[in-house]
Amino acid sequence: MTRVLDGLTGPADLRALADDDLATLATEIRDLLVETVARTGGHLGPNLGAVELTIALHRVFDSPTEPILFDVGHQAYVHKILTGRAGQMPTLRQGGGLSGYPSRAESPHDWIENSHASTALSYADGLAKAYQVRGERRPVVAVVGDGALTGGMCWEALNNIAASDRPVIVVVNDNGRSYSPTAGGFAQHLAGLRLSPNYERTLRQVKGALGRTPVVGAPLYDALHGVKRGLKDLLQPQGMFEDLGLKYFGPVDGHDVAALEAAFRMARGFDGPVIVHAATRKGYGYGPAENDEADQMHQSGGFDPVTGLARKASGRTWTSAFGEELVAIGERRDDVVAITAAMCEPTGLGAFLRRFPERTYDVGIAEQHAVTSAAGLASGGLHPVVAVYATFLNRAFDQLLMDVALHRLPVTVVLDRAGVTGQDGPSHNGIWDLALLGMVPGLRLAAPRDEPSLRELLREAVDVTDGPTVVRFPKTPLGDDLPALRRVGDVDVLAEPAADAAADVLLVAVGSTAGEALGAAAAAGRAGYSVRVVSPRWVTPVDPALVALAADAGLVVTVEDGVETGGVGARLAQAVRNAGSDVPTREIGVPVRFLEHGSVADVKASVGLTVQDIGRRVVEWAASVARPGRVALDGSGQDADVATVRRSGDNGGQ
Amino acid sequence: MTRVLDGLTGPADLRALADDDLATLATEIRDLLVETVARTGGHLGPNLGAVELTIALHRVFDSPTEPILFDVGHQAYVHKILTGRAGQMPTLRQGGGLSGYPSRAESPHDWIENSHASTALSYADGLAKAYQVRGERRPVVAVVGDGALTGGMCWEALNNIAASDRPVIVVVNDNGRSYSPTAGGFAQHLAGLRLSPNYERTLRQVKGALGRTPVVGAPLYDALHGVKRGLKDLLQPQGMFEDLGLKYFGPVDGHDVAALEAAFRMARGFDGPVIVHAATRKGYGYGPAENDEADQMHQSGGFDPVTGLARKASGRTWTSAFGEELVAIGERRDDVVAITAAMCEPTGLGAFLRRFPERTYDVGIAEQHAVTSAAGLASGGLHPVVAVYATFLNRAFDQLLMDVALHRLPVTVVLDRAGVTGQDGPSHNGIWDLALLGMVPGLRLAAPRDEPSLRELLREAVDVTDGPTVVRFPKTPLGDDLPALRRVGDVDVLAEPAADAAADVLLVAVGSTAGEALGAAAAAGRAGYSVRVVSPRWVTPVDPALVALAADAGLVVTVEDGVETGGVGARLAQAVRNAGSDVPTREIGVPVRFLEHGSVADVKASVGLTVQDIGRRVVEWAASVARPGRVALDGSGQDADVATVRRSGDNGGQ
Repeated sequence: MTRVLDGLTGPADLRALADDDLATLATEIRDLLVETVARTGGHLGPNLGAVELTIALHRVFDSPTEPILFDVGHQAYVHKILTGRAGQMPTLRQGGGLSGYPSRAESPHDWIENSHASTALSYADGLAKAYQVRGERRPVVAVVGDGALTGGMCWEALNNIAASDRPVIVVVNDNGRSYSPTAGGFAQHLAGLRLSPNYERTLRQVKGALGRTPVVGAPLYDALHGVKRGLKDLLQPQGMFEDLGLKYFGPVDGHDVAALEAAFRMARGFDGPVIVHAATRKGYGYGPAENDEADQMHQSGGFDPVTGLARKASGRTWTSAFGEELVAIGERRDDVVAITAAMCEPTGLGAFLRRFPERTYDVGIAEQHAVTSAAGLASGGLHPVVAVYATFLNRAFDQLLMDVALHRLPVTVVLDRAGVTGQDGPSHNGIWDLALLGMVPGLRLAAPRDEPSLRELLREAVDVTDGPTVVRFPKTPLGDDLPALRRVGDVDVLAEPAADAAADVLLVAVGSTAGEALGAAAAAGRAGYSVRVVSPRWVTPVDPALVALAADAGLVVTVEDGVETGGVGARLAQAVRNAGSDVPTREIGVPVRFLEHGSVADVKASVGLTVQDIGRRVVEWAASVARPGRVALDGSGQDADVATVRRSGDNGGQ
Repeated sequence: MTRVLDGLTGPADLRALADDDLATLATEIRDLLVETVARTGGHLGPNLGAVELTIALHRVFDSPTEPILFDVGHQAYVHKILTGRAGQMPTLRQGGGLSGYPSRAESPHDWIENSHASTALSYADGLAKAYQVRGERRPVVAVVGDGALTGGMCWEALNNIAASDRPVIVVVNDNGRSYSPTAGGFAQHLAGLRLSPNYERTLRQVKGALGRTPVVGAPLYDALHGVKRGLKDLLQPQGMFEDLGLKYFGPVDGHDVAALEAAFRMARGFDGPVIVHAATRKGYGYGPAENDEADQMHQSGGFDPVTGLARKASGRTWTSAFGEELVAIGERRDDVVAITAAMCEPTGLGAFLRRFPERTYDVGIAEQHAVTSAAGLASGGLHPVVAVYATFLNRAFDQLLMDVALHRLPVTVVLDRAGVTGQDGPSHNGIWDLALLGMVPGLRLAAPRDEPSLRELLREAVDVTDGPTVVRFPKTPLGDDLPALRRVGDVDVLAEPAADAAADVLLVAVGSTAGEALGAAAAAGRAGYSVRVVSPRWVTPVDPALVALAADAGLVVTVEDGVETGGVGARLAQAVRNAGSDVPTREIGVPVRFLEHGSVADVKASVGLTVQDIGRRVVEWAASVARPGRVALDGSGQDADVATVRRSGDNGGQ
């Protein structure tokens, strides 16, 4: 059967469709979304909610001449489908296939590739300024979710957009997740509502959404309350936006293409800065998503398209182990509190929230406030734990440096998704933290290698009282435990030759790279080189025991899943030289470049972070070093132990 | 004559004063402020405007049990005077003396040391949360300027504060600089005003401020217009804050202690989140400051206390040279635009603004938006130049990384106040940029050493079309020109022995450290070591020519005025090793720690960045290196030039 979709080569075709065809098209797009994401994983709920919105936008605005920018970008699948990429949807998020976010390499219709939230309004302000300077009158559309509006960048941008006469159309895709009874005065404020020809219906729908506010326990509700209360303004035309000088249209039924088109045409005709507020429902049109109280299938790793049931996750995760341990800590210490920037469940804080609701804070998509309010909590005598994806900590570097470290406050930051994250593309990789945090005075950074070390280091981190601590771990599933043979200073020795066969190479494995390092050491062993593999528990500051081990080695190789520039290896090399040693040092890490999306394994392979590559480089370097030496032990007088701790095999290699 | 001030040992004494004494006290404080800052330099206008406000705060709130937090902190001199530090004011900003910002080492009344804007509300939210968890009912006061409210962090914090029932009192110190006729509907909105017993007087005063809006040419007015429009909300109680759920008191005459006390007592009694809006006048009570249309003596390097005339600045500045060159570029290219985050004159953009008003944007204290809107401008075909102090770029790292670099957009960032800045204390030093920017893929960083190289590198930076460029320079005055003997690759050779006396050491001088490096080289020469001094024009990415020079040297020493961890020296060392060379490398830079305030020279001396220290270390290292070698030239076949380019002397040593 021929689909309407099959005749679409781009937005121009879309504009030629009749109303009946549009309804069919919306259904076809939803089928394609479900079918695709069931297989590839990705963001489902946000895209199901944005089908009519995106159709209407592309019928009213002449993309790409009139740019349509999608904040965060995980709501852009429909945009991809409508701009000639329907046929490539099966390759979504696969290596070499379509990106899970807009991508300028894919299409001139894609303007922003960044998948961090709250940036699109700033980008739109800049584009509109450029067109003004160039004397072009081109409207710029930015589609932003209600959640993203809790980010400070949006406020900065709105201040600038509102004060101008430039045609920036801010489309608020308000998916109903934010409504809560705190928006109590809602009904009477709707009196100002005039635009929508579907007034009554919108009212009913939005009221319905209010009644159905998903409440995962009162605590989460309270947390949402805190974050979302500002959004009351969205619901009252006489609220914040018009105070700022922004023309406001809405709320519009976000699943009524005709109503949306009418609103967008009016906004376009206004020829100045304007807000269009569209009320949508996440997961709309697909039962399993609509009925998913937790998050309406916001993001999925793949599922059965008929039942909506998720594929079984493979094994235990770092995230859940962290969450469990934090609850245990919370039971023991009533001064430990937790903070999330709108990612309570994804960062593993859900269990803590349910157990200690009065000690858990969701501050919105607001990493800066998360970190500085943590500084305030610590000043008040508590020990906050801020759980955040590694890539998002980059947004709060100044706050961690100035508000926490300068004040020597005991704040613990837990970085999930550190290292290579794969399918979410370049802006989700957590490859900057190791280098970034090395320049924060007084900060201590732990890189656990397995579940026991994660739990142990987290406990140690929250026991620190005089400055910031960070614990980082990857997205990949937890591997086997990698017990230490012994500990030198604060460095765990994972493998070494027998006492009568001292090591040629000291292989320093940062965090979860220990598995690869052990495999590489075994490979080097087969090539005739003996390797001592160590796992520094705290990688920042550099442990003097590690420096001593390095200074005595013939070659030092560090392996880390972060940028090699300024990383742990570079700092170790510097510390070794500062100690007066010129032992050859080499670093294996992620080169300073953006990594294309693909599976974690494929992306790691693309930068040489595999057992094979590490082993090969260790062997090559060991062979080329001018003055091969023997790795001696540190000065702790433990030499006598060596004979008894010979590592039995090479089972650490993944 | 005994002053009221002399009897004050702390806030308790203040509370015992009679009304007449308070007026006298205010006058005495103003005299002390003028007298002090005339000599020491510092922030005058903001403190003159905050005298009554601070007196009233300390009479109503029981500091330090009830914390009073000063955003930015340059308005805290009066607070220092009232909390027992009047006698130490003569030491303000001097090494070993009072800090120019709050300092916990000085007093338990000081809670925040950070001098970056817009953070205090987040800090207050955290403190209030801590007291709630601990079961203590202690109000927390945050004093924030109207300008700081344009920063996104404030929005993030207000969202959280407003949604709570915790007693956070946000005092908006609105110094009138923000009013502009765009707040046109102002008068009628005042209808909602009820609190102030001085209603009519306040109204007159604020209306007066409106009429006297300082307009430095229409362009600046337009720029301010853009930034400040959101503040209209501050003037209407029914505006944004009450929509958010925040109780609003004001505007209150910020120079009427009784009115302020009444407002603060009501706010304190409200026992929940509340805004008190105080209308103050920057520079109040000191003629030369009040009449200073430009910035009401916001910050001064010292002046004549009678006339208010500034001391002569000593010599040309990097800032003005940058500003002049940018105008020249603007004359030639109509696609070049400039962006500032509320620091147009301090960053040298004033001349550009006056010449090209339609191409200059002041976005508010909003570094994130500055950078991402620059990305938008670049996407629209222009070449934006973002001028910012180096320390504030830390606030937009994520935006530079993701919104600019990931998109390979031609945005030029110009970093003023890079390196050691001295008297403004730890949070104003620009010592992180060199390391931070090294981890941004595709970014090119130039470190000019003198005025000609600044102008040349700026021109080259704005000619780059495929990614971000950064040009950084220090706060210190421009020194003499340091011409190159010759250029190898993109590396300028500043000094080297004659051809018949090849060099023992390659001394790599980053940017303005070239002066010190030349002096150190001369000292090493006197000690018997020959040194080649080079100045890499672009320090990121590492120039292959520099790597070749290094690999051929007997010892490589890098000097830079940024953190040594991950800095230019560390990256050069890594590049050298990646090229297969194990030549000894050493880095001289700023250790990873916070630097106390003091003169630039003193602070530099405290970390070993003097001619003497550098020379000593070069000699020590050269003596200790196991395999001294000879510095050969790169492969460019220019060896024949060496004999003709011998440097004549050691006049570069400052």
